[in-house]
Amino acid sequence: MTAQTDQAHAQTRRIILSIDAMGGDEGPAAVVAGCDVSARKNPDIQFILHGPEAELAALVERRRALDDRVEIRDASDVVTMDDKPSQVVRNGKETSMWSAIEAVRDGSATVAVSCGNTGALMALSMIRLRKLPGVNRPAIAVLYPSSNPQGFNVMLDVGADVRADADDLLRYALMGMSYARNGLDLPRPRVGLLNVGTEEHKGRTELKEAYELIRDQREEAGFEFVGFVEGGDITGDICDVIVTDGFTGNVAIKTGEGTASLIGDRLREAFKFSPLSRLASVLAYTSLNRLKKKIDPRRVNGGVFLGLNGTVVKSHGSADATGVSAAIKLAAQLADIKFTDKLAARVAALPAEESEQ
Amino acid sequence: MTAQTDQAHAQTRRIILSIDAMGGDEGPAAVVAGCDVSARKNPDIQFILHGPEAELAALVERRRALDDRVEIRDASDVVTMDDKPSQVVRNGKETSMWSAIEAVRDGSATVAVSCGNTGALMALSMIRLRKLPGVNRPAIAVLYPSSNPQGFNVMLDVGADVRADADDLLRYALMGMSYARNGLDLPRPRVGLLNVGTEEHKGRTELKEAYELIRDQREEAGFEFVGFVEGGDITGDICDVIVTDGFTGNVAIKTGEGTASLIGDRLREAFKFSPLSRLASVLAYTSLNRLKKKIDPRRVNGGVFLGLNGTVVKSHGSADATGVSAAIKLAAQLADIKFTDKLAARVAALPAEESEQ
Repeated sequence: MTAQTDQAHAQTRRIILSIDAMGGDEGPAAVVAGCDVSARKNPDIQFILHGPEAELAALVERRRALDDRVEIRDASDVVTMDDKPSQVVRNGKETSMWSAIEAVRDGSATVAVSCGNTGALMALSMIRLRKLPGVNRPAIAVLYPSSNPQGFNVMLDVGADVRADADDLLRYALMGMSYARNGLDLPRPRVGLLNVGTEEHKGRTELKEAYELIRDQREEAGFEFVGFVEGGDITGDICDVIVTDGFTGNVAIKTGEGTASLIGDRLREAFKFSPLSRLASVLAYTSLNRLKKKIDPRRVNGGVFLGLNGTVVKSHGSADATGVSAAIKLAAQLADIKFTDKLAARVAALPAEESEQ
Repeated sequence: MTAQTDQAHAQTRRIILSIDAMGGDEGPAAVVAGCDVSARKNPDIQFILHGPEAELAALVERRRALDDRVEIRDASDVVTMDDKPSQVVRNGKETSMWSAIEAVRDGSATVAVSCGNTGALMALSMIRLRKLPGVNRPAIAVLYPSSNPQGFNVMLDVGADVRADADDLLRYALMGMSYARNGLDLPRPRVGLLNVGTEEHKGRTELKEAYELIRDQREEAGFEFVGFVEGGDITGDICDVIVTDGFTGNVAIKTGEGTASLIGDRLREAFKFSPLSRLASVLAYTSLNRLKKKIDPRRVNGGVFLGLNGTVVKSHGSADATGVSAAIKLAAQLADIKFTDKLAARVAALPAEESEQ
C-alpha cells in the first residue's frame, strides 16, 4: 500500500486526491465548487471525483480551473446520513464513498476526502484500508481553535470509538503528535492527556496508566508531555495535542461548537436591539468579519482519520465550497509530505503492546 | 435532619443560609460584599458566616444592610485550593468550610454556600451530611446557558464522581428533573441523556441500560424523556436537563467555558484592530454589555450538590460580589421551597435498586 502510494506520487509529480462528491448536505455542486477554489490556489492538485458520471461531468465542465485536472469515477449510489455503517460495509459497493476509499486502496490517490456520514466513512476506511500495524483503534483528529501561536490544537479521538484503554491513549498521543509535527509544522509538540483535574492522583484508572505510558515515550518520540490537562485547556496554550477517548472528545467538541454558536446568535440579537446598536453593528462590520474569519470552523474544516493504511479527511456534512476547499487544502498538505508513511513509521517504532490480540 | 430543617424555618419565618466566608480566590471581603448585595435585594435572608471572627466582624460592620442579619461562627482555619479532600475530612474540623457544613447538619441553616475547593467541599458534605436514602453517588448540577426559554439547561453530574453506572444515571435524571422543577419552575422538565449520537444503538453499554431505566420512570415522575442528546444540545432547546457522568460533564462544561472565553478574547482583539473598529467598539458598548449580562457566568453562578441530606451550593472559586450574590440567590430560592425535602421524596419513591449495596 505504502509503496504504491509513493509510486503514484513519483509518476505524476502531482498531488492526487480522491474526492467523494456525494453525501454532503449541500450536494455535489458544493464539492465541485470547493475543488475549483482549491485548484485555482494550488496548481499541483489533481482530483479523482466519485459519483454519478453525467451529473459530475456537467458540474465540472462549468469550472475552467478544473480543465484536465479531474478524473470522474462513476458511482451510482450514495451513502446517506441515516445509513447504518454496517449496512454500508455490506451493501455499499456502488456508492461514491466506497469508490473514493477504493482509489486510495489501489494507489490511484494518496488521500481521500468525504463530506458524508462519519460512521460509515470510518467503517469503510477500517475494512478497506485496514489498520496500521500496532494500532488497535484508529482515531479521528480535529483542529480546535485555541490561543496557541498556531491558532489551534490537535484533539483526538473525537468519535472513531467510544472506548479507549491506556494503550490506545498512548497510540493516540503518538499519532496526534505526528499529525501536529507534519500537519502544523511543530517540531516538538506538547502533548496533554485530558482529565478532570491536573493532579496525578485524579481521574479514571486507565488515565493514570496512560499517563505513565505516554511519559515514558516522550524522549524517544521527541515530544513534550505536559501531563493531565482539563477541558478549559482545549482552547488554551499549554499544549498542542489533546489526547482523550472518542466519547469524551466527541461530547467536548460538540459542546464547544454549540457554545460558540449560542454566543454568535446572542451577539446578533444584541446588535439588533436598538437603532444605535444597529448603527454600531454597521461600523463593527469589518471587526466582526475579521473575528468570524479567525474562528470560522469552515476554515479549519476536516477531521483526519489516523491509524489506517491511507489518510482519510472527513469534512463537515454541511460544508459549502469554502469548507470543502479547506478540507482539500489539508488533504493536499498531508499527501504532499507523505504523512501516512511518517505516521506508520512512528507507530511501528513502539514496542508491541500486551493488551492487543 | 429534614425535620430539624423545617423547624428552623418555621421558628424564624426567615431564610437562614450558612456561608463559608473563606477559601475563595477573592477572600472574605468579596463574600461579605456578596451577602450585602443579596441582603439589600431580599429582606428575608439571614446569614451564618464562617471564618476568623475578628476579620469577619470588621467586614460586616461596614455593611449597614447586614445589621442584625449576620451571626458569625469563628473558624480559625481555611481549606485551600491545594488541600486534598481526604486531608480536609481528617484534619479539617477547625476550617470555615467544615463549620459551614456543620450548620446545615445541626439544623441552624437550610442551605450552605462556599466558594472553596470543590473536591473538599463534596467530600465534607458526603461525610457530614450523608447521602439521601436511595442515592449511591451524589452529583453536582450546574446551569448552562442555552437557547431554552428559561435561558439555561440543568446539567449533571459535572464532577462529583468520575464514574456512573446505569442506576446512577437514572438517579441523576430524577434529581436533575426535581431541580429543574423546583429551581427553574418547569412543571414538566424535558430530560436528555448525553451520548455521541441520537440513535438508540449508539454509545456505551451503561447508556443503553440507562436509556431504558429513565424512559420507564417518565410517567410516574412526570417528566418528558427526549432520549439521547449530543454535546451540541447542551446549549440547545430540545431539553431542560442533561444527564451524564461526572467525567464527561466536567470536561464538557470546561470546554464550553474555555470556548466562550476564547471568543471573548478574540472579540476584544477584533475591536482594537483599527481606529474605525475602536470607534465601533465605543458605539457597540451597550450592545456588548447587554450580551455580556446575558451570558455572564457570574449571573448563573453556583453548582448544586444533589443527593445529600441538605443542599450545598458551590460558587466559583473566582467569584466576586456579583458571583457570590448569584449563588446566594439560588441558595435562598432552594431553601425557601424546601428543596432538600422535595428531592428526598422524589428519589425515595424509586424502587430499591439492585446494584446498590
